[in-house]
Amino acid sequence: MAAFERKKTRRVLIGNVAIGMDEPIRIQSMTNTKTADVKATVEQILALEKAGCELIRSTVNTKEAAAAFSEIKKEIHIPLIADIHFDYRLAIKAIENGADKIRINPGNIGDRKRVQEVVSAAKERQVAIRVGVNLGSLEKELRETKGATPEALVESALKNAGMIEDMGYDNLVISIKASDIPTAVKAHELLSEKTDHPLHVGITEAGTALYGSIKSAIGLTQILTRGIGDTIRVSLSADPVLEVRAARQILRTLGLRKEGVEVVSCPTCGRTDIDLIALAEEVTRRTEDIALPIKVACMGCVVNGPGEAKDADLAICGGKGEGLLLKKGEVVRKVKEEELVEALLTEINILQNEQTLF
Amino acid sequence: MAAFERKKTRRVLIGNVAIGMDEPIRIQSMTNTKTADVKATVEQILALEKAGCELIRSTVNTKEAAAAFSEIKKEIHIPLIADIHFDYRLAIKAIENGADKIRINPGNIGDRKRVQEVVSAAKERQVAIRVGVNLGSLEKELRETKGATPEALVESALKNAGMIEDMGYDNLVISIKASDIPTAVKAHELLSEKTDHPLHVGITEAGTALYGSIKSAIGLTQILTRGIGDTIRVSLSADPVLEVRAARQILRTLGLRKEGVEVVSCPTCGRTDIDLIALAEEVTRRTEDIALPIKVACMGCVVNGPGEAKDADLAICGGKGEGLLLKKGEVVRKVKEEELVEALLTEINILQNEQTLF
Repeated sequence: MAAFERKKTRRVLIGNVAIGMDEPIRIQSMTNTKTADVKATVEQILALEKAGCELIRSTVNTKEAAAAFSEIKKEIHIPLIADIHFDYRLAIKAIENGADKIRINPGNIGDRKRVQEVVSAAKERQVAIRVGVNLGSLEKELRETKGATPEALVESALKNAGMIEDMGYDNLVISIKASDIPTAVKAHELLSEKTDHPLHVGITEAGTALYGSIKSAIGLTQILTRGIGDTIRVSLSADPVLEVRAARQILRTLGLRKEGVEVVSCPTCGRTDIDLIALAEEVTRRTEDIALPIKVACMGCVVNGPGEAKDADLAICGGKGEGLLLKKGEVVRKVKEEELVEALLTEINILQNEQTLF
Repeated sequence: MAAFERKKTRRVLIGNVAIGMDEPIRIQSMTNTKTADVKATVEQILALEKAGCELIRSTVNTKEAAAAFSEIKKEIHIPLIADIHFDYRLAIKAIENGADKIRINPGNIGDRKRVQEVVSAAKERQVAIRVGVNLGSLEKELRETKGATPEALVESALKNAGMIEDMGYDNLVISIKASDIPTAVKAHELLSEKTDHPLHVGITEAGTALYGSIKSAIGLTQILTRGIGDTIRVSLSADPVLEVRAARQILRTLGLRKEGVEVVSCPTCGRTDIDLIALAEEVTRRTEDIALPIKVACMGCVVNGPGEAKDADLAICGGKGEGLLLKKGEVVRKVKEEELVEALLTEINILQNEQTLF
C-alpha cells in the first residue's frame, strides 16, 4: 500500500477515461509511428493497450496526421490525444477529427488569438486541453528573465492555464517537464501547491530503456510520494510498449496500482546450480502484460528461497537439475529444471481463470 | 546536487576502500561464477571494476571457494568480501585467505560460540564484518514472535551487531534487506535512528534487469533521500555488470556521485526523421563505462532538441539524413546521419584526454 496521501485534484474526462480526483493514476504513452500511417499507428496502439496503456497520444504535425485521427479512432479502444506543436490550425483539425484531448505547448503555439481559436473548438466538443510546458522549449521571455528554473516552468504553466480559464474553459490538465530531477521535483511541488488541475507527470528525455527507466523511476518516486500526479508517462528512447511496462512497474512498486505480475527473483551467486537468470527472464517476459495482481518468486537456492517463497502466491525454487513448485508457500511438487517455467505458467493460468470466474 | 543531508556514520576500512562518514557512497556487487573457479571469477571481477564497482563479494560456500580467495586477490584491484552462510568455519578460512570483509547472516550462522570464533579471527586481522539480515532468512524465533516486519529485521540486526560489540569488536557494517519496498524503507528509517554503524543498502531479489532496476531505483531513492546508506548493491537476476551500471545511474541521478556520462535522449515520436533509438542506444552502450562526468544529449527533432542541447556538454540533434553536432549549446558542424555517433564519441575522447592532462 502507498504510505502517502494523494492530493485531490479536479476530475477530467478524456473520452471514456477519467483522470484526477479518486481515479487511479493513469498510464499513458505516445506513438512513434508516422501518425498518417494509420495501419502502423493502430498496430502500435493495440500493442500498447495490451500492455496496459490507458491513454495514447500521437503527434499531429501535418494535415494528413490530423485526418488520420478519425480512422485511427475507429480501430482502437483507448482515448486518443493529439500532440500539437507550432501550428494551432492542426489542433483545430485534430479536434474536428475526434481527438479526445489535445496537448499544446505554450512555448510554440503562438499568440492569444490563436489559442482562443483552439480553445473555442475544444470547448464546443468538450475536449480536454493539456497545457504542456517543457523546460527545453520554455517561452523565450521567461527563459531570459527567470532562466531554466522550476519557478519559470511553473509560471509558464499557470499563466497559460490562466489564459485559457479566462477564455471560459477549465477542462484542463497541466504538465511541466524537465530532464533534471531536482528541477522537476521542485517544480512539481510548487505547481501542486498552486493549482488543483490534474497533473500529467513524467521525466522528459530520460534516455534509453534501462537508464531511462531508472531515471524515470527516481524522478517519479519523488513526485508521486509527495502525493502529486494523476497520469504518468515514462519517456524512453525505446519501443513505447516499454514505457507502459516501466510505468506499470513504477506504480505497482509504489503501491499506487495493483495490476500486474510482480516477479521477485534472486540475484544469482556462486551457490546457484540452476540457470536462474534465463528462467527469471523467461517468466518475466511471459507474464509482463498479464494484469493479474500476484507475486511470483523465482529463487535459485535454499538460503533465501523458501523464506521469500512463503510470501509469494507462486514460486519456483531451483536446485540441481530440478526445482520445487510452491503455492502460497506450500510445496506443490518437484519439477525438472526444463519444465519449471511451463509448470509455473500453468499455475498462473489457473489463477487467471479462477479470477475471471468470480 | 543532492538536496538532502547524509547521516554521518562511522568510517570503516575494507582493504584500501573506506565506507561511511564522508566517503562517497560506494558501489558494490557480487560475483555469480563458482568462486573456486579462479579464472572465471577474476575475469568477472575485472569487468566489474571497469564498470565502476568498488567492492566485490563472492560466496564462500566450500573449502575450495575459501582457498580460491588468496588466488583471486592477487589478480584484482578492489577489496574482496566473503559471503558466508551456515558454516562459520568457512568464514574463518576466508579470513585466513585474505578476505577484506566478511558478511555473515545471523539467521543461519549458528550460536554465540561459533560467532565468537569468527569474531576472534576477524579481530586479529582487523577484517570488517557485515551483519547482513534478510527478511527471507530471519531467525526463526523472531519470525514467530514479531512476524516478517521492519521491527523484526531491525531487532535481529541490532541484537547480532550488539553481540559482536560485546565481544570487543566494532568494525561493523549492517544491512537489512527485504524485497517489499515499504517494509525496506521503514526498516532503514528505524535502523538508522538506532545505530551509527555504516549501512549497506539495497533491495533484495529485485528481479530481472529492467524491472529489477526500476524496483531498486524506487527503493533506494526512498532510502538514500532520507540520508541513509553508505554503500549500495543493486541485486538483479542478471550479469552483475548491469548491477554496477544501474547503481551508478541511481547515485548519479540522485546527485550522490558524479561519475559517468549522462545520456539525455528524447522519446521518439511521429516527428522524428532519424533512427534515434538506435543512435541513443549506441551512444549509451559505448559510453556506459566511461567515468567522465558529462551530459550528452541525443535529440530527434527541433521541438525540444536545441533547448536541451543548451544544457548538455555535447549534443547531437537529428534532422533528415543528417544532424548537428553541438558543444555547450554551440553548433560545431553538420554531420551525416551515419557519422553522427563517431563524431560524438571523438568529441568525448577529446574531453577525456583534456581531463587527464589537467
